[in-house]
Amino acid sequence: MIYFDNSATTKPYKEVLNSFLTVSSEYFGNPSSLHGFGGQAEKLLSQAREQTAKLIGVKTNELYFTSGGTESNNLAIKGAALGNRNRGRHLITSSVEHPSVLTVMEQLEQEGFEITRLPVDKDGRVSADDVKSSIRKDTILVSIMKVNNEVGTIQPIKEIGDMLKSYPSVIFHVDAVQGIGKVPINIYESRIDLLSISAHKIHGLKGTGALFIREGVRIAPLFLGGNQERKIRSGTENVAGAVAMAKALRMTLDKSAEAMESMVKLKNLLRDKLNEMEQIQINTPIENSAPHILNFSLKGIKSEVFIHALEQKNIFVSTTSACSSKKKAPSNTLLQMGVPEDLAESAIRISLSFDNTEEEARKAILAIEETVKHLGRVMNK
Amino acid sequence: MIYFDNSATTKPYKEVLNSFLTVSSEYFGNPSSLHGFGGQAEKLLSQAREQTAKLIGVKTNELYFTSGGTESNNLAIKGAALGNRNRGRHLITSSVEHPSVLTVMEQLEQEGFEITRLPVDKDGRVSADDVKSSIRKDTILVSIMKVNNEVGTIQPIKEIGDMLKSYPSVIFHVDAVQGIGKVPINIYESRIDLLSISAHKIHGLKGTGALFIREGVRIAPLFLGGNQERKIRSGTENVAGAVAMAKALRMTLDKSAEAMESMVKLKNLLRDKLNEMEQIQINTPIENSAPHILNFSLKGIKSEVFIHALEQKNIFVSTTSACSSKKKAPSNTLLQMGVPEDLAESAIRISLSFDNTEEEARKAILAIEETVKHLGRVMNK
Repeated sequence: MIYFDNSATTKPYKEVLNSFLTVSSEYFGNPSSLHGFGGQAEKLLSQAREQTAKLIGVKTNELYFTSGGTESNNLAIKGAALGNRNRGRHLITSSVEHPSVLTVMEQLEQEGFEITRLPVDKDGRVSADDVKSSIRKDTILVSIMKVNNEVGTIQPIKEIGDMLKSYPSVIFHVDAVQGIGKVPINIYESRIDLLSISAHKIHGLKGTGALFIREGVRIAPLFLGGNQERKIRSGTENVAGAVAMAKALRMTLDKSAEAMESMVKLKNLLRDKLNEMEQIQINTPIENSAPHILNFSLKGIKSEVFIHALEQKNIFVSTTSACSSKKKAPSNTLLQMGVPEDLAESAIRISLSFDNTEEEARKAILAIEETVKHLGRVMNK
Repeated sequence: MIYFDNSATTKPYKEVLNSFLTVSSEYFGNPSSLHGFGGQAEKLLSQAREQTAKLIGVKTNELYFTSGGTESNNLAIKGAALGNRNRGRHLITSSVEHPSVLTVMEQLEQEGFEITRLPVDKDGRVSADDVKSSIRKDTILVSIMKVNNEVGTIQPIKEIGDMLKSYPSVIFHVDAVQGIGKVPINIYESRIDLLSISAHKIHGLKGTGALFIREGVRIAPLFLGGNQERKIRSGTENVAGAVAMAKALRMTLDKSAEAMESMVKLKNLLRDKLNEMEQIQINTPIENSAPHILNFSLKGIKSEVFIHALEQKNIFVSTTSACSSKKKAPSNTLLQMGVPEDLAESAIRISLSFDNTEEEARKAILAIEETVKHLGRVMNK
């Protein structure tokens, strides 16, 4: 199997699964229990928190475990909006965010918040100037993703954060689900207040994620109950999942340091070879895009047809994001970038992991060539 | 180790961990992906849903996976309240619910809902008549737990459900987190609309749970995004966790059928022997209490001191619930039952699993006797 759908989800590392197994079977106590067996679990949870926080460069008490990226985004945005509505009701985001941001914004709009959705340029990029000119006196939140999940465009987070230094009362949320481990980010220097991560995108486990909440930033919780996670996220802590996430993050960052160059090489190889095919238009920008995502459109062939054809050759790619793939609507990000609807409907996303090889890339290129030719013939009959 | 804190959390079954491992490593695709590798994950998720639904006696499309009991309770109550506020704003619950119910009710109260919190009798039991006489024209939700997590009292769910058959517009939520696998429940016959379960209380994994939502019952989601779980719970599905939960539930129900008698015997043995000690008052009612929970108070000895003393003998019990244990406040359920504050402050909960043995119970009884004597001497010095 050539698995090129790593933006949808990744294969958990063996070591990650081993950690999960050990903690689940040997340290299964409830970290909230008063006795020492619960205390052992609590200690492991604290260590996982400390490690994760350190790896993303924040303080331990600023890291909160959640059930994943969607929860982190919902908690960040709803939590910031509802926790600060006394200060204002204006929120700024981009038009190419993940559904877990865009739909939360829609809901808040229905509840009386005002939302500014910024346009993007032909590369799918938001402009920091646009963010700046949208800020009003009642703006309480700016939410912009680090890396677009459909085309891989890197947003100018540092630039936006620098600009926001002049607006200390505006909370800055960054959805870094697609960025962590692939595109470096300095949370403090970029003046980020809230940052979402998900473990299953970095070879951790589904059902685990985290939210960075800068010290002093006010967030209303989504879950109430036993007051775990310092009252921000009630519910018995998934200790084994948190330990597994810390390990996945460490391993991904280690691999990132070692294997980034070869990932970029792979992406460039794919880009160059696909670019040579006349039926193909590359949608991912050359500059400032993530090393693992390559989006392209196949003139005249619907994404779904192409995906199933490639699947016959044991190669797995995706249309847009997994979260949107069953809607059968053309990619929102591509439409926002100004890509014509027919090309947006025939978009394919390749997303790499550090374990993909040049051999896999070359096989995939051949398979794509063959498939394009074959489907082209079928279509023209 | 004698682990008698199974209401806080349980040890995952080996088979449960094996299932989790297999699914996580071999079927790690995203169930929302269009390709067949995602399709395999989706199939496993569907099977887990079908199995879980069948085991609790409901239809497959009425079962929604969540991240645990706290999420299920929050989703059920907030979801029902916010999804039906156009019909009314009155909610009924008991005064002995889990914090994940009581604090959500408090929050809704602040948002303009009216809450009736029903008292309980000396056994910690709500009366169906009280529920009935509290119902108003604008009542939209009744939320009562199946088994009290602190003392084990079984609530008259069937009776309340029967009564509620005359009030078709009132939604009936049951927090069955402590009941499932120990106390039989017929969801349809008890006219239940929403029912919460958690996997880590039945030897499944932390971070996994489910909510039954009867067909046609309107619930507003807590998480928005990729529209997974039929738009009720967005976020990449924790497929391996769901499969593990289905397995944990099946195994627990199998064990329940085989080992219920010996669990009851254990509980009675503990009750009888502890009852013989003059310093001990049993708080769990004899009639209609769950087979796995025994709550008692130790006159003159604070719970925390006793727990740590027992821990020295490698026996693990708890104060009240794990979710409340770090508050250092006396047990809410006991206070509501009319237990005097000093006894409520010295409450101990033993909670059994089907794997606990008579030998463990006898050892624990001896250890408790010794500890009571020893601490009594220390106190009187």
